[in-house]
Amino acid sequence: MTNTILLKSRPEGKPTVSNFEFVKDNSELEINDGEILLETAYVSVDPYLRGRMSDAKSYIPPFELNKPVQSGVVAKVTASKNDNFKNGDYVSGMLAWKTHQVSNGEGLLKVDGSQAPLSTYLGVLGMTGLTAYLGLNQIGKPVAGETIVVSGAAGAVGSVVGQIAKIIGLNVIGIAGTDEKIKMLKTKFGFDAGINYNTSKDIKADIAKAAPNGVDIYFDNVGGPISDAVLFNINRLARIIICGAISVYNSTETPMSVSVQPFLVKNSALMQGFIVSNYAEKFPEAIQQLSAWLSEGKLTYTETIVEGFENIPNAFIDLFEGKNKGKMIVKI
Amino acid sequence: MTNTILLKSRPEGKPTVSNFEFVKDNSELEINDGEILLETAYVSVDPYLRGRMSDAKSYIPPFELNKPVQSGVVAKVTASKNDNFKNGDYVSGMLAWKTHQVSNGEGLLKVDGSQAPLSTYLGVLGMTGLTAYLGLNQIGKPVAGETIVVSGAAGAVGSVVGQIAKIIGLNVIGIAGTDEKIKMLKTKFGFDAGINYNTSKDIKADIAKAAPNGVDIYFDNVGGPISDAVLFNINRLARIIICGAISVYNSTETPMSVSVQPFLVKNSALMQGFIVSNYAEKFPEAIQQLSAWLSEGKLTYTETIVEGFENIPNAFIDLFEGKNKGKMIVKI
Repeated sequence: MTNTILLKSRPEGKPTVSNFEFVKDNSELEINDGEILLETAYVSVDPYLRGRMSDAKSYIPPFELNKPVQSGVVAKVTASKNDNFKNGDYVSGMLAWKTHQVSNGEGLLKVDGSQAPLSTYLGVLGMTGLTAYLGLNQIGKPVAGETIVVSGAAGAVGSVVGQIAKIIGLNVIGIAGTDEKIKMLKTKFGFDAGINYNTSKDIKADIAKAAPNGVDIYFDNVGGPISDAVLFNINRLARIIICGAISVYNSTETPMSVSVQPFLVKNSALMQGFIVSNYAEKFPEAIQQLSAWLSEGKLTYTETIVEGFENIPNAFIDLFEGKNKGKMIVKI
Repeated sequence: MTNTILLKSRPEGKPTVSNFEFVKDNSELEINDGEILLETAYVSVDPYLRGRMSDAKSYIPPFELNKPVQSGVVAKVTASKNDNFKNGDYVSGMLAWKTHQVSNGEGLLKVDGSQAPLSTYLGVLGMTGLTAYLGLNQIGKPVAGETIVVSGAAGAVGSVVGQIAKIIGLNVIGIAGTDEKIKMLKTKFGFDAGINYNTSKDIKADIAKAAPNGVDIYFDNVGGPISDAVLFNINRLARIIICGAISVYNSTETPMSVSVQPFLVKNSALMQGFIVSNYAEKFPEAIQQLSAWLSEGKLTYTETIVEGFENIPNAFIDLFEGKNKGKMIVKI
């Protein structure tokens, strides 16, 4: 039996469970030559999926209504007529929100659960880690001694960015939404300072205090008022990596912010949108480095694992309330 | 007798003549060994000077109160005790708003009025031309067949940007504030299309119409609502050069705009502040190219020349009402 989650309607503002539909199919899945049968093990839920649920122009086409949602998935090969995969292999790739599915193997990567937990191939050794590593290095061009601010710092990408920045030798300031997350940034991930945007009376002033020499790099996962506050603290030749804008993904109106242009021109600063898929040629080098740091114990990670296929929509929705610490993953 | 214009008070909002003070000094100027005596011939007034009149943190220190304002100046050497300059030479450089002054020659460039009119060394062959050429090439990285939008297109920098973009083979769209300016963009400077932001009913839609394949490069001299409208039309991997933000230079409150972050991340787009002085090592190559285009007749320019030292403050103030066409220069 196959369970599938379809996009039933496009969210207006914050997504709700009613935007999704569960369907069951009792027919047996069959594979042809060249195909493999997959049983889903772990499903990644990510803020960027919100963009694909709208029909606005974007870098990847929107999800179609009444078709399965897709995201990063780790799955087990349970039958194979493809020479590249054998029964019992695990693979990762962009796959449908289905308990079982057939694939021709295209775009799938074999992953090894004995080298690292399977879930990490959706997180620190997957798109999350690649986004952190390549966004920071390709756009941020960090130099030891500089100061970086990371927003969404306790999230999947942010927590890895901060750790890599520490390895390189930066002063690392994280912004997150609870005292528990701030504590985790400092104790578990080695951030130098943390700012709780929910309790801070003046985020701009708190950043200035934590960054007495100003901010050279801002890794922006959130957009909105937090990013406005960072702008007032940037240095000459600052680099701002726009990796996400979770604070406005659910906006039903065009969001307004402090005008960035005067800050950029005054400081000869750079602001660039980052999408990891544009840097595919750098993936092997990045994964090698991330794996090395992980096995040397220089890099750690946090996962929020939710159990049960039926909980995928809720896990996704919870991202927008910051209920996850680190990578949000659903175990099937 | 030497006339001098001091910054008397920092403008609040739009500058007024009362922010400046004229002082006269009847003493004879004397030069020591290594010095030259200069008589001011042309003074450049530029929007960026507004920034230096505030005491906010910026890329160059603010003007001091009760000290002379400085800008680009072409002056005649009337006495010399410096081997590098002789009586009758003309020089350009950052000099004080004074009719006469003494210099040690540092930072001054000899200019030749027989090769091009002296005023062009403050415009198309000076900072204006360098800003257009280097901003477009270093950040915009234009490719034949792409589409560029230029705001402040009839201004000193914008009109040169558009012409260079045409030479390279782009589809060039200019935005300006009067029908007369739009006509000039198309007839004199060869722009493909022009949009009058004062009469357009929907700037966003008008840009979409003039740029059916979307906007690859935006050369932004203005900021504010015009730049918001361009954002909705940018392509994947678009480059936005923030050269100026004249629409907000006189703001007394922090200006708000459409949030750029979602547009940048969706399109992997780049937005970068451009300050010409960061590219000094490219000046010789740029001036050579601009001079060649000028003498080949591929590049033309417009100047608004105001006469009289006493009119410098008014000429500067008029910039913010768009009273200039092309480079605004005061002839002494």
